[in-house]
Amino acid sequence: MTDFLHEHAEQVSQAAARIRGHVRRTPTLTTDLDAALRLKPECFQVTGSFKPRGAFNAILSLVARDSRPRGVIAVSSGNHAQAVALAASTVGVPALVLIPEDANPAKVAATRALGAEVIQQGITFANREQRLREVMAERGFVLVHPFDDWDVIHGQGTAARELLQDAQDLEVVAAPLGGGGLLSGTAISAKRHRPTIRVVGVEPAVADDGYRSWRSGSIQTLTASPSTLADGVRTTAIGSRNFEAMFEHGLVDQVVTVSEEEIAGAVRLAWSRLHLALEPTGALPLAAYLAGKLPKGRAGLIFSGGNANLQTVATLLK
Amino acid sequence: MTDFLHEHAEQVSQAAARIRGHVRRTPTLTTDLDAALRLKPECFQVTGSFKPRGAFNAILSLVARDSRPRGVIAVSSGNHAQAVALAASTVGVPALVLIPEDANPAKVAATRALGAEVIQQGITFANREQRLREVMAERGFVLVHPFDDWDVIHGQGTAARELLQDAQDLEVVAAPLGGGGLLSGTAISAKRHRPTIRVVGVEPAVADDGYRSWRSGSIQTLTASPSTLADGVRTTAIGSRNFEAMFEHGLVDQVVTVSEEEIAGAVRLAWSRLHLALEPTGALPLAAYLAGKLPKGRAGLIFSGGNANLQTVATLLK
Repeated sequence: MTDFLHEHAEQVSQAAARIRGHVRRTPTLTTDLDAALRLKPECFQVTGSFKPRGAFNAILSLVARDSRPRGVIAVSSGNHAQAVALAASTVGVPALVLIPEDANPAKVAATRALGAEVIQQGITFANREQRLREVMAERGFVLVHPFDDWDVIHGQGTAARELLQDAQDLEVVAAPLGGGGLLSGTAISAKRHRPTIRVVGVEPAVADDGYRSWRSGSIQTLTASPSTLADGVRTTAIGSRNFEAMFEHGLVDQVVTVSEEEIAGAVRLAWSRLHLALEPTGALPLAAYLAGKLPKGRAGLIFSGGNANLQTVATLLK
Repeated sequence: MTDFLHEHAEQVSQAAARIRGHVRRTPTLTTDLDAALRLKPECFQVTGSFKPRGAFNAILSLVARDSRPRGVIAVSSGNHAQAVALAASTVGVPALVLIPEDANPAKVAATRALGAEVIQQGITFANREQRLREVMAERGFVLVHPFDDWDVIHGQGTAARELLQDAQDLEVVAAPLGGGGLLSGTAISAKRHRPTIRVVGVEPAVADDGYRSWRSGSIQTLTASPSTLADGVRTTAIGSRNFEAMFEHGLVDQVVTVSEEEIAGAVRLAWSRLHLALEPTGALPLAAYLAGKLPKGRAGLIFSGGNANLQTVATLLK
């Protein structure tokens, strides 16, 4: 085992201890579909996605370093926003979330309900990084990045760590790949558990920057935010820390891509046969499994969340 | 504790040992909705409902008494059919299921896929009891009743037994009430756990024979199979053994009814907030909780299954 892996796996263990009591230990499920599968349904995590694992680890670590931070800031219209809002209010730190003006009002309301201040006015997908830097400078708040942050990565790694405690003989672990926060943490936990385990990232084919980054050996960027059912992985590039863990250190063995039809089929099957109301992003590993794109062997699938747009899902079920 | 309760609770413990290895120990979930709730999602049970608990206990008990039974027979177009088919084929006993001609073809196919012989020709909702007696006489097969059978009741009681092992301080346990198999078993396990626990059955208001049986002190019958979203509780009367356990021995404290609108709202909330793809029958205890119809206190809700008609659910989600 490399020093890199050893050190980061130790940080995941510390994250698990740090966030215990704030996040749920979600169950490991078996299914009639295939006796060799193990499912990690993070839809049952607080706020409905795995994101609080990283957000709590980042904010609790921040408070351990600086006992009175002025506040934290996040840019997100989705699961990360709610996770940061919850973690910050639980820990007693002010939170500010920048959400583009055209975001789903239900998600904005959910973020506010968890105690965060939300700024929407004048925020667009295009200018949000610029506005972020301005607001950080004005307020002196600390950024909680959704994926390119070691504390966040270590927190996300606690999901796979639990899965492998429950199912020690897994030969394959698959997780969605967007910015790489979940997959980096998953890979650290999985390779620490057993070096021969195969770690697979699953990405929509229309958002294949991660696949191309893996194949090319350098970070590849999408020219625009992709249009995919899997709205949790619309990031245009993976982070540099994520690239380092996943590909420079080779902790991820493979990235596979799935079509929009494969994602839709996986959502339908999850809802009808697994009885899990997953969001499309959460169903990515299932889509890869159903399409026969995972390596052979006992596989653990990490389902990242369940905060689906019900209109979309209702259409998929018909 | 009465002798009745003591004896039947002992039988539930024996059932738990007997069916272990054939059914899943489903998890106990917590939820953002209310920190005092505990959920028992039997949608994750094999075949997608709690029914295999009773079916395995009945068929394994039958084989223990008679090492070479000629076969078992069931009348059902739903979850009980699949449970009996699975249990019989696992144990190596022939199974015959009578399903009315107008039943959902997908459910017929699922029952056949689990190894049962299915007879549909000439079977109607009205004549099925008559045809059952004829076929039993012809073949010498043993009936596995869906609820009015002590072995079935003891098997169903293992779900609440697990729930109370996981959440020992519950003050209320609620389960759907149709024929009374699940609720009888639940009441035995719950009152054995703590005599002061409140056991509540939940029934659609349009199928309130159980409610009226509880109030009147004798079994009341619906004149026709009710039209309710909760298609798992369309039985017209509870069974005599179920009446005995639930109401003669007073193990059920209360029956509450919910409207079709309340059931629809509970299904929507289960799918959107709990991320559980429940069938409407499975959501009955949640409907009662949301309507404020459960007694105060830490409540465990037994969600009986997830085999929903996707068309129906898609309509509810819109």
